[in-house]
Amino acid sequence: MPTPTLLVLDAEPLPRLGRLTGRAHVEHTDAKGLAERLPHADVLLVWDFTSHAVRDAWPGEGPRPRWVHTASAGVDHLMCPELAASDTVVTNARGIFDQPIAEYVAALVLAMAKDLPRTLELQRERTWRHRESQKVAGGRAVVVGSGPIGRAIAGTLGALGITTALVGRTARAGVHGPEDLDRLLARADWVIAAAPLTEQTRGMFDARRFGVMQPSARFVNIGRGQLVVEDALAEALAKQWIAGAALDVFESEPLPADSPLWQVPGLIVSPHMSGDIVGWRDELGTQFVELYELWAAGEPLKNVVDKQRGYVPGH
Amino acid sequence: MPTPTLLVLDAEPLPRLGRLTGRAHVEHTDAKGLAERLPHADVLLVWDFTSHAVRDAWPGEGPRPRWVHTASAGVDHLMCPELAASDTVVTNARGIFDQPIAEYVAALVLAMAKDLPRTLELQRERTWRHRESQKVAGGRAVVVGSGPIGRAIAGTLGALGITTALVGRTARAGVHGPEDLDRLLARADWVIAAAPLTEQTRGMFDARRFGVMQPSARFVNIGRGQLVVEDALAEALAKQWIAGAALDVFESEPLPADSPLWQVPGLIVSPHMSGDIVGWRDELGTQFVELYELWAAGEPLKNVVDKQRGYVPGH
Repeated sequence: MPTPTLLVLDAEPLPRLGRLTGRAHVEHTDAKGLAERLPHADVLLVWDFTSHAVRDAWPGEGPRPRWVHTASAGVDHLMCPELAASDTVVTNARGIFDQPIAEYVAALVLAMAKDLPRTLELQRERTWRHRESQKVAGGRAVVVGSGPIGRAIAGTLGALGITTALVGRTARAGVHGPEDLDRLLARADWVIAAAPLTEQTRGMFDARRFGVMQPSARFVNIGRGQLVVEDALAEALAKQWIAGAALDVFESEPLPADSPLWQVPGLIVSPHMSGDIVGWRDELGTQFVELYELWAAGEPLKNVVDKQRGYVPGH
Repeated sequence: MPTPTLLVLDAEPLPRLGRLTGRAHVEHTDAKGLAERLPHADVLLVWDFTSHAVRDAWPGEGPRPRWVHTASAGVDHLMCPELAASDTVVTNARGIFDQPIAEYVAALVLAMAKDLPRTLELQRERTWRHRESQKVAGGRAVVVGSGPIGRAIAGTLGALGITTALVGRTARAGVHGPEDLDRLLARADWVIAAAPLTEQTRGMFDARRFGVMQPSARFVNIGRGQLVVEDALAEALAKQWIAGAALDVFESEPLPADSPLWQVPGLIVSPHMSGDIVGWRDELGTQFVELYELWAAGEPLKNVVDKQRGYVPGH
């Protein structure tokens, strides 16, 4: 077959693609050039996973890429009805972020339990003030999202002695269905949002759900900003319905400098970095090259997204 | 026998001692009154474990308590040659602090790996700045101190996927001797000081040892301040011989407001709180009451300190 055209939507240089030299005709584009180039591409690699350009540029009919890969776990930024209805295969970066995100969640949980943000404040003020802190072992967590990221979080929290329940789209072995969620939230010390953004999960953490949680509970979102009604979280913290929270993802990213969220007491704000360890771009590049080799050889792809559900169906 | 006199050196109220009503004649004292009362006491409970008063007040000859218990893991604050040479039994709070301290160390390790202090700074500045962070799984740690606290730390770091070596006073199964320390330090990502303060360990983390560590290494001290030459640590951080450090204990506690340590870049300062979870005073009180019941029944005590070595000999 002729050398396929690989179109890369990128905002910054991408490692490891040199390994495809001679096996792909690689073109780069930004969001503006995407619509014009998409019909001529065999494969689209969405390297700039912060962009929503694919949704806007996807051709309704006629020629289009047969395969779209996104260098991210979530696919919400690129899915649109036309892409979902097409026979184009969509794959994601399943597997790369699991362990790093699990460690990041453990870091936030332990930092909140040990009152580390306050310790750093007191250090700035040169003030020695002994406080008692919390033991995490023996506590209870609920992780919403039963994919590889949610399971990795449950494994790491479990290793710290925290009894962890997973909640998924449907009940199955080791996973609770949504019908158990409120009951689990009512007794959790830690609530971790790690679900994909779908029509079922959008806005699921709203005022009612924060009201169900214990006053001592703390909430962490490393999934997608839109899982959370941000105003409701800020109010729940202000009214001490819950004891603390940490957000790594937001409705609008980067979080605008004038957002009130930066200064909500009891809220840790981080810039969508939970999975991004040193070397992550390398790993994403290597993963894509391996998938490309399968695709070029006509073999079945891995990490194929169920385009109706919006994620890779699990075990 | 007549009701024994239990003398309590305390700075604040102590829970659970009411359970000894009728079985002990309980007297309270501060540091000033200690020397006068010591000769009349059968048992001394050092509840104010920040005090060095016992060392100064211990009677050289004549009547003195037959048993001294300290509500702390370390005994360096009370040991003196006269106490060491006497037949008075010394016990400590072995077991209470192990898991809380292990969690605290994990919190510091993860916070440094995930650059959390910088994230909190950027939040104050309302600045969204994505950074890459470190994966802890697959890294290497050295824990100096092979007692229950050191072993609990090794267990928790191991659960996070960090390969952890223990270094003790002498080599034995699962524990390296001091002769291996420099070789282990040279390849460690994390160095944790969890040793008792003895003549062998005083000042062991000095300029030479920080020079042996990797530039990417981070150092944590939750043992005793005097294990570390503080000026040498500050200099090692300034010269980037190591990448970061966290101290929970200091040569002088509370750390004076004018100490330069408060503002050393890359150093986290916390107020000797690593083991002090909510309920710790209750646990310490309960532990003492249980030991008192053994003692009053003439049964062998637990947690008996080797007064020459300065800690409870382990397995």
